[in-house]
Amino acid sequence: MKSAKISEAVVRRLPIYLQVLNELHIREIQTVSSQELGVKLDLNPAQIRKDLAYFGEFGRKGIGYDVLYLIEKIRQILKLNQTIKVALVGAGNLGRALCNYNKYSKDNMQITAVFDVHPEKIGTDINNLVVQPMSELEKVVAEQKIRIGIITVPAHEAQNVANQFITVGVEGILNFAPAILRVPDEVRIHNADFTRELLSLAYYLNHEGDVSDDSAVD
Amino acid sequence: MKSAKISEAVVRRLPIYLQVLNELHIREIQTVSSQELGVKLDLNPAQIRKDLAYFGEFGRKGIGYDVLYLIEKIRQILKLNQTIKVALVGAGNLGRALCNYNKYSKDNMQITAVFDVHPEKIGTDINNLVVQPMSELEKVVAEQKIRIGIITVPAHEAQNVANQFITVGVEGILNFAPAILRVPDEVRIHNADFTRELLSLAYYLNHEGDVSDDSAVD
Repeated sequence: MKSAKISEAVVRRLPIYLQVLNELHIREIQTVSSQELGVKLDLNPAQIRKDLAYFGEFGRKGIGYDVLYLIEKIRQILKLNQTIKVALVGAGNLGRALCNYNKYSKDNMQITAVFDVHPEKIGTDINNLVVQPMSELEKVVAEQKIRIGIITVPAHEAQNVANQFITVGVEGILNFAPAILRVPDEVRIHNADFTRELLSLAYYLNHEGDVSDDSAVD
Repeated sequence: MKSAKISEAVVRRLPIYLQVLNELHIREIQTVSSQELGVKLDLNPAQIRKDLAYFGEFGRKGIGYDVLYLIEKIRQILKLNQTIKVALVGAGNLGRALCNYNKYSKDNMQITAVFDVHPEKIGTDINNLVVQPMSELEKVVAEQKIRIGIITVPAHEAQNVANQFITVGVEGILNFAPAILRVPDEVRIHNADFTRELLSLAYYLNHEGDVSDDSAVD
Protein backbone atom coordinates (compact mmCIF):
# COMPACT_ATOMS: atom_id res chain seq x y z
CA MET A 1 0.00 0.00 0.00
CA LYS A 2 1.37 3.39 -0.97
CA SER A 3 0.71 6.59 0.92
CA ALA A 4 0.15 9.89 -0.86
CA LYS A 5 3.24 12.04 -0.42
CA ILE A 6 2.61 14.57 2.33
CA SER A 7 4.51 17.84 2.22
CA GLU A 8 7.17 18.44 4.86
CA ALA A 9 5.35 21.53 6.13
CA VAL A 10 2.24 19.46 6.82
CA VAL A 11 4.20 16.66 8.48
CA ARG A 12 5.77 19.24 10.76
CA ARG A 13 2.38 20.63 11.72
CA LEU A 14 0.88 17.23 12.55
CA PRO A 15 2.59 16.89 15.96
CA ILE A 16 1.24 20.34 16.84
CA TYR A 17 -2.29 19.31 15.90
CA LEU A 18 -1.78 16.18 17.95
CA GLN A 19 -0.69 18.21 20.97
CA VAL A 20 -3.78 20.42 20.86
CA LEU A 21 -6.09 17.48 20.23
CA ASN A 22 -4.60 15.58 23.18
CA GLU A 23 -5.22 18.62 25.38
CA LEU A 24 -8.84 18.76 24.20
CA HIS A 25 -9.26 15.04 24.83
CA ILE A 26 -7.96 15.38 28.39
CA ARG A 27 -10.55 18.10 28.92
CA GLU A 28 -13.17 15.64 27.61
CA ILE A 29 -14.01 17.79 24.59
CA GLN A 30 -15.32 15.50 21.86
CA THR A 31 -15.52 17.67 18.75
CA VAL A 32 -13.59 20.69 17.50
CA SER A 33 -14.03 22.97 14.50
CA SER A 34 -11.27 24.19 12.22
CA GLN A 35 -12.08 27.71 13.53
CA GLU A 36 -11.40 26.64 17.12
CA LEU A 37 -8.20 24.85 16.11
CA GLY A 38 -7.19 27.95 14.13
CA VAL A 39 -7.51 30.20 17.18
CA LYS A 40 -5.51 27.79 19.34
CA LEU A 41 -2.73 27.39 16.78
CA ASP A 42 -2.73 30.86 15.23
CA LEU A 43 -3.34 29.24 11.84
CA ASN A 44 -5.89 29.97 9.14
CA PRO A 45 -8.90 27.56 9.45
CA ALA A 46 -8.75 27.02 5.67
CA GLN A 47 -5.12 25.89 6.07
CA ILE A 48 -6.13 23.46 8.79
CA ARG A 49 -8.96 22.00 6.69
CA LYS A 50 -6.55 21.65 3.77
CA ASP A 51 -3.89 19.95 5.93
CA LEU A 52 -6.34 17.48 7.39
CA ALA A 53 -8.01 16.78 4.05
CA TYR A 54 -4.75 15.10 2.97
CA PHE A 55 -5.86 12.12 4.96
CA GLY A 56 -9.43 11.78 3.84
CA GLU A 57 -12.70 13.38 4.85
CA PHE A 58 -12.60 13.79 8.62
CA GLY A 59 -14.68 16.83 9.34
CA ARG A 60 -18.42 17.14 9.20
CA LYS A 61 -20.01 20.44 8.24
CA GLY A 62 -21.48 22.24 11.25
CA ILE A 63 -20.15 19.62 13.67
CA GLY A 64 -16.42 19.74 13.13
CA TYR A 65 -13.85 17.05 13.76
CA ASP A 66 -14.22 14.16 16.14
CA VAL A 67 -11.26 14.72 18.51
CA LEU A 68 -10.53 11.10 19.32
CA TYR A 69 -10.85 9.95 15.71
CA LEU A 70 -8.50 12.70 14.54
CA ILE A 71 -5.96 11.80 17.26
CA GLU A 72 -5.98 8.18 16.12
CA LYS A 73 -5.71 9.16 12.46
CA ILE A 74 -2.76 11.52 12.99
CA ARG A 75 -0.99 8.96 15.19
CA GLN A 76 -1.46 6.45 12.40
CA ILE A 77 -0.09 8.83 9.75
CA LEU A 78 2.92 9.66 11.91
CA LYS A 79 3.32 5.91 12.50
CA LEU A 80 2.94 6.32 16.23
CA ASN A 81 0.66 3.29 16.39
CA GLN A 82 3.80 1.20 16.67
CA THR A 83 6.55 1.23 19.26
CA ILE A 84 9.62 3.01 17.93
CA LYS A 85 12.78 2.40 19.88
CA VAL A 86 15.32 5.16 20.31
CA ALA A 87 18.98 5.22 21.38
CA LEU A 88 20.51 8.30 22.95
CA VAL A 89 24.22 9.17 22.87
CA GLY A 90 25.43 11.75 25.38
CA ALA A 91 24.53 11.18 29.02
CA GLY A 92 24.83 14.79 30.17
CA ASN A 93 22.13 17.05 31.61
CA LEU A 94 20.29 17.28 28.30
CA GLY A 95 20.37 13.51 27.76
CA ARG A 96 19.12 13.07 31.31
CA ALA A 97 16.29 15.56 30.72
CA LEU A 98 15.20 13.74 27.56
CA CYS A 99 15.22 10.32 29.23
CA ASN A 100 13.22 11.74 32.09
CA TYR A 101 10.68 13.32 29.77
CA ASN A 102 10.45 10.05 27.88
CA LYS A 103 9.60 8.15 31.05
CA TYR A 104 6.35 10.07 31.39
CA SER A 105 5.52 10.26 27.71
CA LYS A 106 2.46 8.56 26.33
CA ASP A 107 4.03 8.46 22.87
CA ASN A 108 5.15 5.12 21.61
CA MET A 109 8.67 6.38 21.10
CA GLN A 110 10.85 5.01 23.82
CA ILE A 111 14.48 5.70 24.63
CA THR A 112 15.58 2.15 25.40
CA ALA A 113 19.38 2.57 25.44
CA VAL A 114 21.83 5.29 26.48
CA PHE A 115 25.48 5.54 25.46
CA ASP A 116 28.40 7.82 26.21
CA VAL A 117 32.01 8.12 25.09
CA HIS A 118 33.34 9.19 28.48
CA PRO A 119 34.53 6.31 30.71
CA GLU A 120 33.39 8.02 33.92
CA LYS A 121 29.77 7.97 32.72
CA ILE A 122 29.71 4.30 31.65
CA GLY A 123 27.80 2.15 34.12
CA THR A 124 25.94 5.05 35.70
CA ASP A 125 22.19 4.99 35.72
CA ILE A 126 19.64 7.24 33.96
CA ASN A 127 16.02 6.40 34.67
CA ASN A 128 16.80 2.69 35.04
CA LEU A 129 18.91 2.64 31.87
CA VAL A 130 22.59 1.86 32.38
CA VAL A 131 24.90 4.10 30.33
CA GLN A 132 26.80 1.86 27.92
CA PRO A 133 30.06 2.34 26.00
CA MET A 134 29.91 3.11 22.25
CA SER A 135 31.46 -0.29 21.55
CA GLU A 136 28.06 -1.80 22.47
CA LEU A 137 26.10 0.41 20.04
CA GLU A 138 25.97 -1.98 17.08
CA LYS A 139 24.93 -4.99 19.17
CA VAL A 140 22.26 -3.12 21.15
CA VAL A 141 20.75 -1.40 18.09
CA ALA A 142 20.43 -4.77 16.35
CA GLU A 143 19.08 -6.62 19.39
CA GLN A 144 16.51 -3.97 20.32
CA LYS A 145 15.63 -3.04 16.72
CA ILE A 146 16.40 0.62 17.46
CA ARG A 147 15.39 2.90 14.57
CA ILE A 148 16.10 6.43 15.81
CA GLY A 149 19.24 7.94 17.34
CA ILE A 150 19.33 11.07 19.50
CA ILE A 151 22.57 13.06 19.69
CA THR A 152 23.17 15.08 22.86
CA VAL A 153 26.95 15.39 22.75
CA PRO A 154 29.00 18.58 22.27
CA ALA A 155 29.14 20.03 18.74
CA HIS A 156 32.65 18.75 17.98
CA GLU A 157 31.69 15.15 18.77
CA ALA A 158 28.35 15.18 16.95
CA GLN A 159 29.40 14.20 13.41
CA ASN A 160 31.37 11.25 14.75
CA VAL A 161 28.34 10.01 16.68
CA ALA A 162 26.11 10.53 13.62
CA ASN A 163 28.53 8.45 11.55
CA GLN A 164 28.32 5.62 14.06
CA PHE A 165 24.53 5.75 14.08
CA ILE A 166 24.54 5.56 10.29
CA THR A 167 26.97 2.65 10.27
CA VAL A 168 24.78 0.60 12.59
CA GLY A 169 21.69 1.33 10.49
CA VAL A 170 19.46 3.81 12.32
CA GLU A 171 16.93 5.39 9.95
CA GLY A 172 16.44 8.74 11.65
CA ILE A 173 18.57 11.07 13.78
CA LEU A 174 17.46 13.84 16.11
CA ASN A 175 20.43 16.14 16.63
CA PHE A 176 20.60 18.52 19.60
CA ALA A 177 24.22 19.58 19.04
CA PRO A 178 24.77 23.04 17.54
CA ALA A 179 26.48 21.62 14.46
CA ILE A 180 25.51 20.99 10.85
CA LEU A 181 25.75 17.23 10.32
CA ARG A 182 26.12 15.42 7.03
CA VAL A 183 24.15 12.24 6.54
CA PRO A 184 23.38 10.14 3.47
CA ASP A 185 20.04 10.66 1.69
CA GLU A 186 18.49 7.50 3.09
CA VAL A 187 18.89 8.73 6.68
CA ARG A 188 16.49 11.43 7.86
CA ILE A 189 17.94 14.05 10.19
CA HIS A 190 15.98 16.59 12.23
CA ASN A 191 17.59 19.34 14.23
CA ALA A 192 16.49 20.27 17.72
CA ASP A 193 19.33 22.73 18.30
CA PHE A 194 17.64 25.31 20.53
CA THR A 195 20.28 27.96 19.83
CA ARG A 196 18.71 28.50 16.43
CA GLU A 197 15.35 29.33 17.97
CA LEU A 198 17.02 31.53 20.54
CA LEU A 199 19.10 33.47 18.00
CA SER A 200 16.20 34.01 15.61
CA LEU A 201 14.12 35.20 18.57
CA ALA A 202 16.57 38.07 19.09
CA TYR A 203 15.65 39.45 15.68
CA TYR A 204 12.09 40.03 16.82
CA LEU A 205 12.93 41.98 19.97
CA ASN A 206 11.94 45.62 19.97
CA HIS A 207 14.39 48.09 18.52
CA GLU A 208 14.53 49.97 21.81
CA GLY A 209 17.49 48.04 23.14
CA ASP A 210 21.07 49.25 23.14
CA VAL A 211 21.79 48.21 19.56
CA SER A 212 25.07 49.75 18.56
CA ASP A 213 24.18 49.77 14.88
CA ASP A 214 20.79 49.16 13.32
CA SER A 215 20.13 46.34 10.93
CA ALA A 216 19.11 48.59 8.07
CA VAL A 217 19.65 47.67 4.48
CA ASP A 218 21.82 50.22 2.74
CA MET B 1 16.39 53.98 10.89
CA LYS B 2 13.99 51.43 9.50
CA SER B 3 14.99 47.92 8.47
CA ALA B 4 13.50 46.24 5.45
CA LYS B 5 11.09 43.56 6.63
CA ILE B 6 12.81 40.18 6.42
CA SER B 7 10.63 37.11 5.98
CA GLU B 8 10.36 34.67 8.85
CA ALA B 9 11.82 31.84 6.77
CA VAL B 10 14.97 33.89 6.14
CA VAL B 11 15.29 34.95 9.78
CA ARG B 12 15.09 31.29 10.75
CA ARG B 13 17.84 30.39 8.28
CA LEU B 14 20.22 33.10 9.49
CA PRO B 15 21.32 31.25 12.66
CA ILE B 16 22.10 28.24 10.47
CA TYR B 17 24.23 30.35 8.14
CA LEU B 18 25.92 31.79 11.21
CA GLN B 19 26.69 28.33 12.52
CA VAL B 20 28.33 27.22 9.27
CA LEU B 21 30.23 30.48 8.91
CA ASN B 22 31.53 30.21 12.47
CA GLU B 23 32.76 26.70 11.71
CA LEU B 24 34.54 27.98 8.58
CA HIS B 25 36.08 30.83 10.56
CA ILE B 26 37.42 28.42 13.19
CA ARG B 27 39.01 26.45 10.35
CA GLU B 28 40.57 29.74 9.16
CA ILE B 29 38.69 29.70 5.87
CA GLN B 30 38.33 33.29 4.69
CA THR B 31 35.93 33.14 1.74
CA VAL B 32 33.08 30.87 0.79
CA SER B 33 30.88 30.61 -2.31
CA SER B 34 27.12 30.17 -2.35
CA GLN B 35 27.79 26.75 -3.97
CA GLU B 36 29.92 25.65 -1.01
CA LEU B 37 27.35 26.94 1.47
CA GLY B 38 24.63 25.17 -0.52
CA VAL B 39 26.37 21.80 -0.22
CA LYS B 40 26.92 22.25 3.51
CA LEU B 41 23.33 23.29 4.17
CA ASP B 42 21.54 21.21 1.56
CA LEU B 43 20.08 24.43 0.14
CA ASN B 44 19.95 25.77 -3.39
CA PRO B 45 22.85 28.25 -3.99
CA ALA B 46 20.37 30.63 -5.67
CA GLN B 47 18.27 30.58 -2.49
CA ILE B 48 21.35 31.41 -0.43
CA ARG B 49 22.29 34.33 -2.69
CA LYS B 50 18.72 35.60 -2.49
CA ASP B 51 18.62 35.32 1.31
CA LEU B 52 21.90 37.14 1.74
CA ALA B 53 21.03 39.80 -0.83
CA TYR B 54 18.36 41.03 1.61
CA PHE B 55 21.13 42.73 3.48
CA GLY B 56 23.02 44.37 0.65
CA GLU B 57 25.66 43.22 -1.77
CA PHE B 58 28.01 40.95 0.13
CA GLY B 59 29.28 38.51 -2.40
CA ARG B 60 31.83 39.13 -5.12
CA LYS B 61 31.61 37.23 -8.38
CA GLY B 62 34.25 34.52 -8.63
CA ILE B 63 35.47 35.16 -5.08
CA GLY B 64 32.40 34.52 -2.98
CA TYR B 65 31.56 35.84 0.44
CA ASP B 66 34.05 37.11 2.99
CA VAL B 67 33.39 34.78 5.94
CA LEU B 68 34.20 37.22 8.73
CA TYR B 69 32.30 40.10 7.14
CA LEU B 70 29.23 37.90 6.67
CA ILE B 71 29.42 36.70 10.28
CA GLU B 72 29.49 40.29 11.51
CA LYS B 73 26.66 41.30 9.21
CA ILE B 74 24.38 38.42 10.25
CA ARG B 75 25.16 39.04 13.93
CA GLN B 76 24.17 42.65 13.38
CA ILE B 77 20.91 41.72 11.64
CA LEU B 78 20.01 39.26 14.39
CA LYS B 79 20.94 42.00 16.90
CA LEU B 80 23.59 39.81 18.46
CA ASN B 81 25.99 42.76 18.60
CA GLN B 82 24.39 43.66 21.92
CA THR B 83 24.13 41.69 25.13
CA ILE B 84 20.66 40.23 25.53
CA LYS B 85 19.83 39.04 29.00
CA VAL B 86 17.69 35.96 29.50
CA ALA B 87 15.78 34.57 32.49
CA LEU B 88 15.04 30.86 32.78
CA VAL B 89 12.14 29.38 34.76
CA GLY B 90 12.39 25.69 35.59
CA ALA B 91 15.57 24.48 37.28
CA GLY B 92 15.31 20.83 36.25
CA ASN B 93 17.70 18.81 34.08
CA LEU B 94 16.78 20.72 30.94
CA GLY B 95 17.19 24.10 32.63
CA ARG B 96 20.54 22.93 33.96
CA ALA B 97 21.62 21.79 30.49
CA LEU B 98 20.71 25.16 28.97
CA CYS B 99 22.55 27.12 31.65
CA ASN B 100 25.58 24.93 31.17
CA TYR B 101 25.50 25.39 27.42
CA ASN B 102 25.11 29.09 27.88
CA LYS B 103 28.25 29.27 30.03
CA TYR B 104 30.37 28.22 27.08
CA SER B 105 28.47 30.10 24.42
CA LYS B 106 30.13 32.90 22.51
CA ASP B 107 26.74 34.41 21.70
CA ASN B 108 25.85 37.58 23.49
CA MET B 109 22.72 36.00 24.88
CA GLN B 110 23.26 35.28 28.53
CA ILE B 111 21.07 33.49 31.02
CA THR B 112 21.54 35.80 33.99
CA ALA B 113 18.77 34.58 36.31
CA VAL B 114 17.11 31.25 37.12
CA PHE B 115 13.76 30.77 38.84
CA ASP B 116 11.66 27.86 40.04
CA VAL B 117 8.28 27.39 41.67
CA HIS B 118 9.33 24.47 43.83
CA PRO B 119 10.57 25.44 47.34
CA GLU B 120 13.15 22.63 47.44
CA LYS B 121 14.96 24.09 44.40
CA ILE B 122 15.09 27.69 45.67
CA GLY B 123 18.56 28.62 46.86
CA THR B 124 20.31 25.80 44.99
CA ASP B 125 23.04 26.69 42.54
CA ILE B 126 23.20 26.29 38.73
CA ASN B 127 26.44 27.43 37.14
CA ASN B 128 26.95 30.13 39.77
CA LEU B 129 23.35 31.33 39.48
CA VAL B 130 21.23 30.91 42.60
CA VAL B 131 17.73 29.60 41.85
CA GLN B 132 15.25 32.28 42.94
CA PRO B 133 11.54 32.15 43.81
CA MET B 134 9.02 33.46 41.28
CA SER B 135 8.19 36.29 43.67
CA GLU B 136 11.53 37.83 42.70
CA LEU B 137 10.86 37.68 38.93
CA GLU B 138 9.51 41.20 38.47
CA LYS B 139 12.29 42.86 40.46
CA VAL B 140 15.11 40.88 38.81
CA VAL B 141 13.78 41.35 35.26
CA ALA B 142 13.58 45.11 35.82
CA GLU B 143 16.98 45.38 37.54
CA GLN B 144 18.85 43.28 34.98
CA LYS B 145 16.88 44.53 31.96
CA ILE B 146 16.04 40.96 30.99
CA ARG B 147 14.34 40.77 27.59
CA ILE B 148 13.87 37.05 26.92
CA GLY B 149 12.31 34.33 29.05
CA ILE B 150 12.98 30.61 28.70
CA ILE B 151 10.36 28.15 29.93
CA THR B 152 11.60 24.70 31.03
CA VAL B 153 8.75 23.68 33.31
CA PRO B 154 6.27 20.81 32.77
CA ALA B 155 3.50 21.39 30.21
CA HIS B 156 0.76 22.07 32.76
CA GLU B 157 2.77 24.88 34.40
CA ALA B 158 3.95 26.52 31.19
CA GLN B 159 1.07 28.90 30.45
CA ASN B 160 1.20 30.23 33.99
CA VAL B 161 4.93 30.95 33.68
CA ALA B 162 4.37 32.57 30.26
CA ASN B 163 1.72 34.83 31.81
CA GLN B 164 4.16 35.93 34.49
CA PHE B 165 6.86 36.64 31.90
CA ILE B 166 4.37 38.73 29.93
CA THR B 167 3.26 40.63 33.04
CA VAL B 168 6.83 41.63 33.90
CA GLY B 169 7.48 42.78 30.35
CA VAL B 170 9.74 40.26 28.59
CA GLU B 171 9.65 40.72 24.80
CA GLY B 172 10.37 37.18 23.70
CA ILE B 173 9.75 33.70 25.07
CA LEU B 174 11.47 30.44 24.18
CA ASN B 175 9.17 27.62 25.26
CA PHE B 176 10.51 24.09 25.77
CA ALA B 177 7.32 22.70 27.31
CA PRO B 178 5.17 20.48 25.11
CA ALA B 179 2.22 22.86 25.29
CA ILE B 180 0.66 25.45 23.00
CA LEU B 181 0.97 28.78 24.80
CA ARG B 182 -1.09 31.88 24.17
CA VAL B 183 0.71 35.21 24.24
CA PRO B 184 -0.33 38.70 23.13
CA ASP B 185 0.76 39.92 19.69
CA GLU B 186 3.52 42.16 21.05
CA VAL B 187 5.34 39.21 22.63
CA ARG B 188 7.22 36.89 20.31
CA ILE B 189 7.16 33.20 21.17
CA HIS B 190 9.36 30.48 19.66
CA ASN B 191 8.93 26.82 20.40
CA ALA B 192 11.81 24.49 21.14
CA ASP B 193 9.64 21.55 22.06
CA PHE B 194 11.75 18.63 20.86
CA THR B 195 8.82 16.21 20.88
CA ARG B 196 7.56 17.85 17.69
CA GLU B 197 10.80 17.10 15.89
CA LEU B 198 10.85 13.58 17.26
CA LEU B 199 7.24 12.81 16.27
CA SER B 200 7.60 14.23 12.77
CA LEU B 201 10.81 12.19 12.38
CA ALA B 202 8.76 9.01 12.81
CA TYR B 203 6.86 9.82 9.64
CA TYR B 204 10.04 9.52 7.60
CA LEU B 205 11.09 6.12 8.87
CA ASN B 206 10.97 3.31 6.37
CA HIS B 207 7.73 1.45 5.96
CA GLU B 208 9.38 -1.82 6.90
CA GLY B 209 8.51 -1.56 10.57
CA ASP B 210 5.68 -3.35 12.30
CA VAL B 211 3.02 -0.81 11.36
CA SER B 212 -0.35 -2.26 12.18
CA ASP B 213 -2.15 -0.21 9.53
CA ASP B 214 -0.63 1.85 6.75
CA SER B 215 -1.11 5.58 6.46
CA ALA B 216 -2.67 5.43 3.05
CA VAL B 217 -5.17 7.96 1.82
CA ASP B 218 -8.42 6.30 0.82
